Amino acid sequence: MVIPSLIQHKRDGGSLEPAVWRRLIEDYTAGRVPDYQMSALLMAVVWRGLAAEELAAFTQAMLDSGDRLSFGSSTPPRVDKHSTGGIGDKVSLLLAPMVAACGVAVPMMSGRGLGHTGGTLDKLEAIPGFRTNLSLKEARDQVERIGCAMLGQTAEIAPADKRLYALRDVTGTVESIPLIAASIISKKLAEGLTGLVLDVKTGSGAFLPETAQAIELAQTMIRLARDHGCPTVVLLTAMDRPLGRSCGNALEVEEAIEGLRGDGPADLMEVTYALGVEMLLLAKVVDDTGEARRQLEASVTSGRALAKLSQIIEAQGGNSKVIDDPELLPQAAEVEVFRAVRDGVVSRVEPRRLGQGIVELGGGRRTIEDTINPAVGFVIPVKPGDQVREGEPIASIFAEDVDGIELGLKALGEAIAIGASGQPTPLISHRVTENGIEAFERTVMADQSGRKR
Amino acid sequence: MVIPSLIQHKRDGGSLEPAVWRRLIEDYTAGRVPDYQMSALLMAVVWRGLAAEELAAFTQAMLDSGDRLSFGSSTPPRVDKHSTGGIGDKVSLLLAPMVAACGVAVPMMSGRGLGHTGGTLDKLEAIPGFRTNLSLKEARDQVERIGCAMLGQTAEIAPADKRLYALRDVTGTVESIPLIAASIISKKLAEGLTGLVLDVKTGSGAFLPETAQAIELAQTMIRLARDHGCPTVVLLTAMDRPLGRSCGNALEVEEAIEGLRGDGPADLMEVTYALGVEMLLLAKVVDDTGEARRQLEASVTSGRALAKLSQIIEAQGGNSKVIDDPELLPQAAEVEVFRAVRDGVVSRVEPRRLGQGIVELGGGRRTIEDTINPAVGFVIPVKPGDQVREGEPIASIFAEDVDGIELGLKALGEAIAIGASGQPTPLISHRVTENGIEAFERTVMADQSGRKR
Repeated sequence: MVIPSLIQHKRDGGSLEPAVWRRLIEDYTAGRVPDYQMSALLMAVVWRGLAAEELAAFTQAMLDSGDRLSFGSSTPPRVDKHSTGGIGDKVSLLLAPMVAACGVAVPMMSGRGLGHTGGTLDKLEAIPGFRTNLSLKEARDQVERIGCAMLGQTAEIAPADKRLYALRDVTGTVESIPLIAASIISKKLAEGLTGLVLDVKTGSGAFLPETAQAIELAQTMIRLARDHGCPTVVLLTAMDRPLGRSCGNALEVEEAIEGLRGDGPADLMEVTYALGVEMLLLAKVVDDTGEARRQLEASVTSGRALAKLSQIIEAQGGNSKVIDDPELLPQAAEVEVFRAVRDGVVSRVEPRRLGQGIVELGGGRRTIEDTINPAVGFVIPVKPGDQVREGEPIASIFAEDVDGIELGLKALGEAIAIGASGQPTPLISHRVTENGIEAFERTVMADQSGRKR
Repeated sequence: MVIPSLIQHKRDGGSLEPAVWRRLIEDYTAGRVPDYQMSALLMAVVWRGLAAEELAAFTQAMLDSGDRLSFGSSTPPRVDKHSTGGIGDKVSLLLAPMVAACGVAVPMMSGRGLGHTGGTLDKLEAIPGFRTNLSLKEARDQVERIGCAMLGQTAEIAPADKRLYALRDVTGTVESIPLIAASIISKKLAEGLTGLVLDVKTGSGAFLPETAQAIELAQTMIRLARDHGCPTVVLLTAMDRPLGRSCGNALEVEEAIEGLRGDGPADLMEVTYALGVEMLLLAKVVDDTGEARRQLEASVTSGRALAKLSQIIEAQGGNSKVIDDPELLPQAAEVEVFRAVRDGVVSRVEPRRLGQGIVELGGGRRTIEDTINPAVGFVIPVKPGDQVREGEPIASIFAEDVDGIELGLKALGEAIAIGASGQPTPLISHRVTENGIEAFERTVMADQSGRKR
């Protein structure tokens, strides 16, 4: 293989043969193709895209670079949910135990937060003792025993993706729909799933803010997963404001537990139920949406979902007493309220600025090596469209020290805008399947704001 | 500087500040920016181009990364010619001594052949003893003493360009008009010139085959050099067939000497004179084209140009006896004629295939580390449009051994097409200056083919 010629061919808008992609990924993973050639090729891919056959081969090569979870044919259906990442998105912490409590196996592999977005692993690790670095064997055994395991991408899974992702992160080649799709789907295929549900965020705090791009990513991932035998459904959900009230690792665990107790914010619960419905349908344990929703709600009202979370925490070495006593979670040294600066309507709660605020407070990462303080963050009960009065407390800051409180006040001051009007965008805007796209005008919920007064 | 953000900005079509480019090039040269980030950025530049201010800053940073030739104010005007590279292009070997013989200083820095194109340094080094690795001080002293020095790009000149070029070569990022322009102009500016003439090749054997691209490159280089105080004129010349008859290092030296004796092929002489006229005009030693041409022709007929070449060879350690005795040049062990396969008109003499043929014979480089055999090559007296008879000798192969002869026969068989008709394109198609573009229908010459019968 003459690598410069391959790069030129891609650069000039051509396609590389599937066998060439396989060889490139193999050789890169083995250190035979240097980073400087791969990064130029990746930039050419950002520019020119990947044809369907190229994308399939690229994804398969990343999958084949490592091991995968393998289940016996007698194992129940296995479904996972993956989100493209946002602020306040603690859905996985509720959804995995709920779906597992409905008899569907959930082998859930998640990531860490980086930049302004949070990560499920960091949230789980806010629970004292919780261990996310399960081996594949441990994960499989746990899924077979209790129906769910929540782990990080091990070194055994798609090492080519891991190496490529690290390179993309430092070479401005992250924002490419085929590269994002290949990275997500190669890891999900390694979980040995029978179905996959994806939550693609849209809006200012999302990775791909525009709906059109989000739909393109959704369709790309659906085709790619389908061609590898994994039926996939995508919901597009709003990330122009945080999901739920809490943003910050321990705070989000606490909110997830409240949710499993039946006391979660309406928006969080709605997204969780909607994704859960798709998971139960894909798993074929129910026939219709209504029945799926009823089973999920019953898992909460019966306490079975919360018991499942307790079981997962114990299986992974965590202290399950946090469920009854949230004070056992890491606690911030300083707490301060943030008050509305004027009368009006909340017009904006900007998630990207909040995410940056959490990084500034020490609760997120600038680089993958950073350690984080799980206790810090924000609780913001107001949503766009809510009426507020000047001086009214509309958010809280949880910080390590008074300097953190100052940073938090500044972040909230910049993130929350109060004006004459505010109109929330639909919480769930589209449902994308192999068969097409359904658009929703608005998401029906008992209480859009989820605000407690 | 957060490099990934800069790469993203360029990738998304933005411009980087001049100070950012300076810093990037400085940090890259100092090893503080890794190759993998620079190659991704270069690919983004291939994609998005460079704005005028970016290009100026990029070029200046490369120039500033090294030393330059500096001449006292009393030194006569200094003009150089640079070609974008082709097959059989030995113009520099004639032009430098001719122009120097007309009283204009020529500090000429050239490159080596790579891939299918030849390089002036390799041709010069076919002369026994000829040393091209002059230091800047040696070069300056020689220019001041005898009016001309012919050297390679020393480590002192634009080291940033040297490093970037090596990276571009292996990352598919060579074919970018601003990057090509910056690379050429940064090196030429380091020569301390008062004027510059560029020969931009067009046609199938050229780096940029399309006339439109060649004109864009020409205009980019003219603006860039002008903004750095170096008036520049560009001629677009034909590289859809080789220039002159000889292709191969020692063979081209021999042809250049014949040319300086007044016995060169018409096409070679025409391009040489046309470029020389521009050099004399830029140097302001003459007022008009006619006078410039007469002085150049007189340098040949009087023998002064040949004497100047002899002086240059001796100054650089070479054996100037080659001028009178071409047998002192490296000689090929095997010589074979190539005959026309049918009656007809030569429709094509494909330079790219000939260049590859020379590489196959061992006379060119696949990688920059390759050593070459200077004796091998082709002599092809026929040109597109010439009538030939079946069995008539129309070319010769000079090879190291009989295997080389076979390779050469194959290369000529593929490069030379004989059909019903052949129409040479204009030898010099355009003249581009700061003020505009002149197009020529055809180049008037005594004998277009330059064929000896």
